[in-house]
Amino acid sequence: MKSLKIIKIGGNIINNNNVLKKFIKDFSNLDGLKILVHGGGTAASELSEKLNLEIQKIEGRRITDAATLDVVAMVYAGKINKTIVSQLQAQNCNALGLSGTDANSICSVKRPNIPIDFGFVGDVISVNTDFIELLLKQRIVPVFCAVTHDGKGQLLNTNADTIASELAVSLANFYDTELFYCFEKKGVLHNILDEDSVIKSIDINLYKSLKENGQIAEGMIPKLDNAYKALNQNVKKVCIGLPEMIFKSNSIFTTLKL
Amino acid sequence: MKSLKIIKIGGNIINNNNVLKKFIKDFSNLDGLKILVHGGGTAASELSEKLNLEIQKIEGRRITDAATLDVVAMVYAGKINKTIVSQLQAQNCNALGLSGTDANSICSVKRPNIPIDFGFVGDVISVNTDFIELLLKQRIVPVFCAVTHDGKGQLLNTNADTIASELAVSLANFYDTELFYCFEKKGVLHNILDEDSVIKSIDINLYKSLKENGQIAEGMIPKLDNAYKALNQNVKKVCIGLPEMIFKSNSIFTTLKL
Repeated sequence: MKSLKIIKIGGNIINNNNVLKKFIKDFSNLDGLKILVHGGGTAASELSEKLNLEIQKIEGRRITDAATLDVVAMVYAGKINKTIVSQLQAQNCNALGLSGTDANSICSVKRPNIPIDFGFVGDVISVNTDFIELLLKQRIVPVFCAVTHDGKGQLLNTNADTIASELAVSLANFYDTELFYCFEKKGVLHNILDEDSVIKSIDINLYKSLKENGQIAEGMIPKLDNAYKALNQNVKKVCIGLPEMIFKSNSIFTTLKL
Repeated sequence: MKSLKIIKIGGNIINNNNVLKKFIKDFSNLDGLKILVHGGGTAASELSEKLNLEIQKIEGRRITDAATLDVVAMVYAGKINKTIVSQLQAQNCNALGLSGTDANSICSVKRPNIPIDFGFVGDVISVNTDFIELLLKQRIVPVFCAVTHDGKGQLLNTNADTIASELAVSLANFYDTELFYCFEKKGVLHNILDEDSVIKSIDINLYKSLKENGQIAEGMIPKLDNAYKALNQNVKKVCIGLPEMIFKSNSIFTTLKL
């Protein structure tokens, strides 16, 4: 099987023009089949503020009401997605921006409103692997934003980490799939205050004990849960760290294994 | 050659939810190969107002400064494009939303800033017909918004009528191409005050004389110039009228011929 890299970037890259430019250049130079998934960083919140929309959160998670969904579609699928794609095109990387509704590439279901009503938030139920394979065969690089649809005309806000892992799992039947979560730290840290305490390798037992002992920061847990879900479904490797982990052979990051 | 219909819709359809829903249903039921091109209606101006951006116009044409370009990318490529695509998907029409930067589908050049600096406005220079053919062969329906790119990392605001005619011309080498401009009137009118004064057929000589005599409304002239440019480059037919012209065999509209 051919290998496929799925790379997810978040706010730390998207919010900083120079960092984004460097990432775009490195990503364009990366050989082989690849898919980019991006979040929205703080841009959606910034636009919501400018529009005087109240940002509602429950347990740190954004509630997506109708007005917020519009903001998400505008910022993620419009401004950020098209900016990234145009910059990739400038580096001769034949990128194609996608939300889940485009060619029905990612279909999701609105999250049940019990116990918490998160609003227009979708949980992925299917990935159109035929379409993504068609693109990859043409050396087109899919660039996914964090918007999906329910197939019935409703757009849904969907976590970008989840989109990346669902893509990795669905495509693992056709490619040797590696998943890279790029974020603002060098990896999963033993001590959140010590940037250099990266745990280079975590297996499922170590993960369980780190979680049980409360040694992993709360925001990291969904990312790692996503990662283990992917590893349990034939994804070869999940790496977490700074973007340079993908491009520099000597960089330090966390590799997750079963 | 197979036939291909390219249909452009504007604000009169996009701004009205019920009209848009009806159009989406009719468009989905339309047999054969098809491409949809949409403008942005008044939504971009509305967002600009909410953000307290000054809307600058010269000779009735919007100046696209950097902040306005962001608005255009958000509204056209984000909200409107993804809303239309998701509604088409709900009708089992396998739509794919595109801006010109996606797969380098439409490349343009920034309009020279002399005599008027329109800002980030692009004039189309090339269409990636290979990519569009690839989609059409898979029965995927491209849905273009009015945003292109210059291939060097710059998004550009581009007139939707022009995008439609440039697509029609480029694809006329591969398909029998028909171009439909849907707008809020039944067609080109003899008398702008009389909705029923539709000129059912215009050839190049009649067009010239109507223009010379000042009998065509000013806003109509660029549309008709686009249409004749297309007809001069192998597009089979250009029609102008209400959206029902495409779907109802007995409707009245204007057909342009050489």
